[in-house]
Amino acid sequence: MKSQSPKDTIVARATAAGVGAIAVIRVSGAGAWSMTDALLKKPVGDQPSHTAHLRTMYDADGVMDEALITLFQGKRSYTGEDTVEISVHGSEYIVSRVLRAYMDRGARLADPGEFTQRAFLNGKLDLAQAEAVADLIASEHRMAHDLALKQLKGGFSKDIATLRDRLLHFTSLVELELDFAEEDVEFAERSELKLLVERIQLEVLTLRDSFALGNVIKKGLALVLAGRPNAGKSTLFNALLNEDRAIVSDIAGTTRDAIEAQLNFEGFMLRLIDTAGIREATDVIEQEGIARTFSHVEKAGATMYLLDMGSCSLTQAEQDLRMLKEKTSRVWVVCNKVDLAGNADRQPWLDMVAGLGLEEPWFVSARDKVSVQALRLALEARFLGGLSDVGDQTVVTNVRHAESLDHCAREMQQVLDGMASGLSGDLLAFHLREGIRALSGITGEIGVEEILGSIFSKFCIGK
Amino acid sequence: MKSQSPKDTIVARATAAGVGAIAVIRVSGAGAWSMTDALLKKPVGDQPSHTAHLRTMYDADGVMDEALITLFQGKRSYTGEDTVEISVHGSEYIVSRVLRAYMDRGARLADPGEFTQRAFLNGKLDLAQAEAVADLIASEHRMAHDLALKQLKGGFSKDIATLRDRLLHFTSLVELELDFAEEDVEFAERSELKLLVERIQLEVLTLRDSFALGNVIKKGLALVLAGRPNAGKSTLFNALLNEDRAIVSDIAGTTRDAIEAQLNFEGFMLRLIDTAGIREATDVIEQEGIARTFSHVEKAGATMYLLDMGSCSLTQAEQDLRMLKEKTSRVWVVCNKVDLAGNADRQPWLDMVAGLGLEEPWFVSARDKVSVQALRLALEARFLGGLSDVGDQTVVTNVRHAESLDHCAREMQQVLDGMASGLSGDLLAFHLREGIRALSGITGEIGVEEILGSIFSKFCIGK
Repeated sequence: MKSQSPKDTIVARATAAGVGAIAVIRVSGAGAWSMTDALLKKPVGDQPSHTAHLRTMYDADGVMDEALITLFQGKRSYTGEDTVEISVHGSEYIVSRVLRAYMDRGARLADPGEFTQRAFLNGKLDLAQAEAVADLIASEHRMAHDLALKQLKGGFSKDIATLRDRLLHFTSLVELELDFAEEDVEFAERSELKLLVERIQLEVLTLRDSFALGNVIKKGLALVLAGRPNAGKSTLFNALLNEDRAIVSDIAGTTRDAIEAQLNFEGFMLRLIDTAGIREATDVIEQEGIARTFSHVEKAGATMYLLDMGSCSLTQAEQDLRMLKEKTSRVWVVCNKVDLAGNADRQPWLDMVAGLGLEEPWFVSARDKVSVQALRLALEARFLGGLSDVGDQTVVTNVRHAESLDHCAREMQQVLDGMASGLSGDLLAFHLREGIRALSGITGEIGVEEILGSIFSKFCIGK
Repeated sequence: MKSQSPKDTIVARATAAGVGAIAVIRVSGAGAWSMTDALLKKPVGDQPSHTAHLRTMYDADGVMDEALITLFQGKRSYTGEDTVEISVHGSEYIVSRVLRAYMDRGARLADPGEFTQRAFLNGKLDLAQAEAVADLIASEHRMAHDLALKQLKGGFSKDIATLRDRLLHFTSLVELELDFAEEDVEFAERSELKLLVERIQLEVLTLRDSFALGNVIKKGLALVLAGRPNAGKSTLFNALLNEDRAIVSDIAGTTRDAIEAQLNFEGFMLRLIDTAGIREATDVIEQEGIARTFSHVEKAGATMYLLDMGSCSLTQAEQDLRMLKEKTSRVWVVCNKVDLAGNADRQPWLDMVAGLGLEEPWFVSARDKVSVQALRLALEARFLGGLSDVGDQTVVTNVRHAESLDHCAREMQQVLDGMASGLSGDLLAFHLREGIRALSGITGEIGVEEILGSIFSKFCIGK
């Protein structure tokens, strides 16, 4: 929790810093309206909520600006408190003078995210919705935007609430038994409870696993480009980039052994990583350095292995792919220089890749624009899978939610193990309660004190 | 004039670009309200002006955002047209999608300053007021802010209108004579007219001359620090800066021969310039390079000449000061290392400086904080003169206005010369009309077509 009082009237610039036509300052709290009137000769405090008024604002030194003042009353505001939004000319000087004027009258500068935190504390948003506000502001692509918006509108919260309510129902039955312990009744049929817990665990794990996708949608898919020397990786890398005019840059914090570029697909982002280490895989393979090189493969969402159909042997490729498979579950094979090979030559490669249990390889010519564009579309399709309309399913995008779901799944496992070993009803109830607690933490219904600070501190000031 | 139609509905982001809690988009024109309703399921077009509404906004791809929509009807808006302000979550993705949605429905992106241009075209602001909007947004200090605000509120426009009306009155009398030319009457008494024209010319020139001050208030006073080696310039420079924690940086576009730093006084800005050329003045004095070095002195608002009372001879200093006086009208003398000299030693310096007709020198010890602070206050007082309350007098801050005033003054001189040489009434009337035209151009009442484009193109987009 914040150390500052939630009763204070808070003020902050709500629009981005810098020169613009206008800047908006937000004031929230019991004093918001009266402090505003103290800065005006013609008050607005008697005006209805959701009305806008052009007024000259004054401080002790004279006129500050002609401002447009919009009023929001109590429950009808974003924060659930009396709120004023002040639209001034977009000068840093004016903004700081207006902020100072409110502070002189007893307001304090808002902490990051404090407006949204108040919306949560006043029951205007649950915790998952509040987090979606930050995601929405940060969203750069359609899919990230759609997920954040769905979460903001409460879709995710509703799914969690349904799971929790089903658990709560059975938990209360188990607890009821405890009250009648002498009579040895079972209100909660054990076989039925087992089925329910298993189903909930499966749903929770499915949700948790969606975080891998959710995170990719939010942050982009990291795709490592691997292959032997002269497989045509650089050509393909540049060909993919030229299509998108993407900017090539070093990955922050790493040495020049890897370059990263972003490709913007419709609705999501691909972060293409070319690692020098993998480029010389045959030379480095036995060396200590392999760990650092392959760590890109381990951390990335997928690895695209490129081979030259003309010069690479099946055995060589199979050996490389087995090694990659040890590091990552998602390896995509691209057979390059298909223009130099006949169609008849494809079958051995198809068989080899299928034999390793990998997805069907792509055949391209990295020097041919049409071929590269086809690869681009294929990449997009494979990445998105059946997920072109994310709106239909719930996807977890927040690591805190994924951890809470994981926690819930572990508690369900404890319940299942406990039932198998004849654990007492009160211990079963304990784990069920812990599972409920984990779910409730997502939307903030219980046990939220310790997580509030970490959530809202990530917000920008003025939100 | 803009080539684009002023009938179009225009749209633009009105707040600064970048990440903020919210961003505001502005739409103005006949289609503003109906286009907005086309993006909503629950329309707002039937709501009164100056009301705010929380709505979900849709485009063809689905939900764009939850937005706060504020309505402004026709004459009551900033532009004088139907206007909508849309406050969305501060994501670049959302802003661009909303802009695109309006463009898909027939709006176009606004040119820089086009909202304010429409306010002018619709009679909401005169031209001088419209220019003040840009000045207000750019204002970084109290005095610049106060001047812009006064101009925005019409104070300057009123002064100009008064001058023009007096000229108009006499011009119409002179023109009336032309209608009665055969009868040889003089409605406009020549001696009275001469007095009036002289008085107007004086007022116009006073206003024009205030531009020097207005420009300094707007852009800061450039003060060159000059002096012989070891006079203590670097020490003083740094001492003045340390007081203000100002940032030292190279002047853009110049070589490393000059460094500039900004000192923020209460309400105005001092740009302190230390030129290497002047630093070695004794060596460079006969060389070609003197021109480049002294050009800083010529361009600056004032030059502060620093001398070491211990090592500099009166003759040396007098020689330097005479040279500086040739380049600039404003030379301030600072006698350094006063701590090493007794009070008795001050008189020769006072006499020498007074003999040159310069303002009284300051005596400081650049190593002494109290002494430097006293210099700082003295600098501020000398710069501001009696102008601490700019609100009481009209100061021209705009080069276009200064040129118009200069033009008017030249026409008045033509009238005076013409009267002395017996110029005919119709030629006098011509010059009077030209003078009126020059004044009217300031507020935009006549002859504005050719200047509109250049004024509004300096605005930021969305204003």
